[in-house]
Amino acid sequence: MDIDVVIHNGTLVTLDDRARIIDNGWIGIHEDVIRAIGATAAESPPPTAKIAIDAKGGIVMPGLVNTHTHLPMTLFRGLADDLPLKDWLEGHIFPAEARFVNPETVRWGTLLACAELLLSGTTCCCGGYFHEDAVARAVAETGMRALLAQGVIDFPAPGVPDPEKNIDHARNYAQRWKGCNRLITPSIFCHSPYTCSDGTLKAAKATADDLGLIFQIHVAETRFERDQSIKEKGLSPVARLDRLGILDQRTLMAHCVWVDDADIATINHRGCAVAHCPESNMKLASGIAPVTGMRSAGVTVSLGTDGCASNNNLDMFGEMGTAAKLHKVATFDPTALNATRVLKMATIDGARAIGLADRTGSLEIGKQADIIVLDPRHPHLTPMYHPESHIVYAAGGGDVRHVLVSGRLVVKDRQLLTIDIEAVIDRVNAIARNIRSSL
Amino acid sequence: MDIDVVIHNGTLVTLDDRARIIDNGWIGIHEDVIRAIGATAAESPPPTAKIAIDAKGGIVMPGLVNTHTHLPMTLFRGLADDLPLKDWLEGHIFPAEARFVNPETVRWGTLLACAELLLSGTTCCCGGYFHEDAVARAVAETGMRALLAQGVIDFPAPGVPDPEKNIDHARNYAQRWKGCNRLITPSIFCHSPYTCSDGTLKAAKATADDLGLIFQIHVAETRFERDQSIKEKGLSPVARLDRLGILDQRTLMAHCVWVDDADIATINHRGCAVAHCPESNMKLASGIAPVTGMRSAGVTVSLGTDGCASNNNLDMFGEMGTAAKLHKVATFDPTALNATRVLKMATIDGARAIGLADRTGSLEIGKQADIIVLDPRHPHLTPMYHPESHIVYAAGGGDVRHVLVSGRLVVKDRQLLTIDIEAVIDRVNAIARNIRSSL
Repeated sequence: MDIDVVIHNGTLVTLDDRARIIDNGWIGIHEDVIRAIGATAAESPPPTAKIAIDAKGGIVMPGLVNTHTHLPMTLFRGLADDLPLKDWLEGHIFPAEARFVNPETVRWGTLLACAELLLSGTTCCCGGYFHEDAVARAVAETGMRALLAQGVIDFPAPGVPDPEKNIDHARNYAQRWKGCNRLITPSIFCHSPYTCSDGTLKAAKATADDLGLIFQIHVAETRFERDQSIKEKGLSPVARLDRLGILDQRTLMAHCVWVDDADIATINHRGCAVAHCPESNMKLASGIAPVTGMRSAGVTVSLGTDGCASNNNLDMFGEMGTAAKLHKVATFDPTALNATRVLKMATIDGARAIGLADRTGSLEIGKQADIIVLDPRHPHLTPMYHPESHIVYAAGGGDVRHVLVSGRLVVKDRQLLTIDIEAVIDRVNAIARNIRSSL
Repeated sequence: MDIDVVIHNGTLVTLDDRARIIDNGWIGIHEDVIRAIGATAAESPPPTAKIAIDAKGGIVMPGLVNTHTHLPMTLFRGLADDLPLKDWLEGHIFPAEARFVNPETVRWGTLLACAELLLSGTTCCCGGYFHEDAVARAVAETGMRALLAQGVIDFPAPGVPDPEKNIDHARNYAQRWKGCNRLITPSIFCHSPYTCSDGTLKAAKATADDLGLIFQIHVAETRFERDQSIKEKGLSPVARLDRLGILDQRTLMAHCVWVDDADIATINHRGCAVAHCPESNMKLASGIAPVTGMRSAGVTVSLGTDGCASNNNLDMFGEMGTAAKLHKVATFDPTALNATRVLKMATIDGARAIGLADRTGSLEIGKQADIIVLDPRHPHLTPMYHPESHIVYAAGGGDVRHVLVSGRLVVKDRQLLTIDIEAVIDRVNAIARNIRSSL
């Protein structure tokens, strides 16, 4: 066997079809692909390789998949909290975006987001924003896997002053990035049913279909949005999108907090995936998405952090813990969303939701080597009876020791190898000083 | 001024009466006490001292106060999750406790808990368990501040095979520890209204009163408990305790999930404090305590993690973030429990709840030097517009760099100075191997 890198001496949490856990296992990687997986025994030691990574008794698992975020919004982390939604958006976030979002600031905010994501074990993210060319170029520098969309909205937006051209911008971006970088997949993101006309929604979806891309959209995030849609269109947001022919297996809907049983049946029937963002929905007081209901209907539900202005970090470990606990209390059922289920949402179901399940989201032979190693030798991870429990209920992003994306070591011993993090922090702090002094 | 230690070059988040934040501030410590606080300027540099701690632009704040936990239960961290409450308790936790809880295991579990608490910025904790002598001796070794109670329950318990002697055990423990260690304050903990008779409850409270101690009790944690109390006693748990004369300013009630407006009025009228444990209540699917209602009535509400069997870590930063977000979504009000309010719950209100507000919970001249320093030079804490927002919404226990308790440096550059953590982890892992192999 031709193995370049072997990771050994760890507990493998595979998230494969049987969610196998392999004590004292090893993984062999050739170039960017997982070539072999085994259990170490006296008579069958791990293979030799040029690079051996000793997991030191830690947990070896697939990298996490964050299916809903807005990378450059790290610039606005904690700028304004604890406010009514309208004040928060119109008094703080929109004005800051209008003045300070440009290709240069977007680049630094994105590098900061990727640093945070990689250090906390997320190897693949999905989201959208404006100036997405700058976002994609920055992500490509970091060696992270991503599905990245140019935003479409029927208002003047950063880089798209004329909303008549919003689809053209998105199409041009997507065409430029399609097939040009094996880690970056372009996508198109219509902001929401309430900020896009029927015509915009249909044209954006048609563009995504033309190019064979995932179409993303925020749907039914707030009660206000749902009520307004019913009042003005006579349909729930989901029903309206369905009427427009937009819902299918390549549609990823973020939030879906205010969906009823009929909406869930539609989502399931059409094969759409839902990106659940519990911490953002809690912090903005939007509501609790009916995740257990969507799950039992058969909908693929993944996890996302949302952007840093509404969370305020990108730690998928925290998001897993919150999801697992929130739906237990919301349903008064302590068996709801068990650790394995939540872990799937954050890995293989996330990969499925964004059309990348053939290459990431689990430790399986033939898949890309998107792998993280957690260090359990800390008081808060001692003792360890069940690794999945620790991942969901006790660990945090800070417990990630090594990160590989596509076979490449991007974090080693908690140090980023692909990003000059000191320079990024200094640049973002300088941008933030400007933002602070102007607001 | 006679200053032994100065902490400088940080943003002081004082949590004093005005919740002052001092940019580029300094704190001067003499022996165990905060002697001076100032803002650094060219014409007024910080005083010189034998030991200077450079906060390097970080956040300097009071150590966190965890007002409800069961320290030795770290032994059972993640032993069983995602189960109905009855199965979890009767099938897993109680049998494990019956077989494996003894003074030796309690000692190692407690040392592990203190290591986790100190490393994550908690300088004072409050809780109760059995074999509390062994708990208190272990905590005393670590240099942590604590209010520690011997448990009282009307069933055979570890170390108290004869429940007839439960009050004697608690009294003997409390008498031994009263006044004998300036960091350890004894207390008495009746398990709950549903596991203790009226006689036990009254005798335990009388014992606490005799000795001038805080009386702790779990109250109204589950709907079942509330309903059973009403059915069997004709009174809610709170009303029953009030009828027994047990509620006063030295009573700390953990949970209070199932309390109605009349209960809240009683709690407030009697001046009791409530230890809110959001993550435990969520994970066990108990419910969401009416914290905003208790707060507006005037009740002192503090925060606690509960024991590691039901959380599964002791990170008060996570608990703050969860509390802030949970009550926003529970009330559909994004302004509910803002960052400053939650931070008070985790510091000064916690100190107040356990009768130690004269000495800990805020950075003020004359108080004990219980101080933590957070390192903000991480991607997930960049940029920083408002330190309080970062503490509650973005930081984690892993961001704590230095910890002082009573003027003594117990964590320096993330390393514990008072606990041999490698030895503790090895011992707890050995105990856990026994537990695992027997269950």
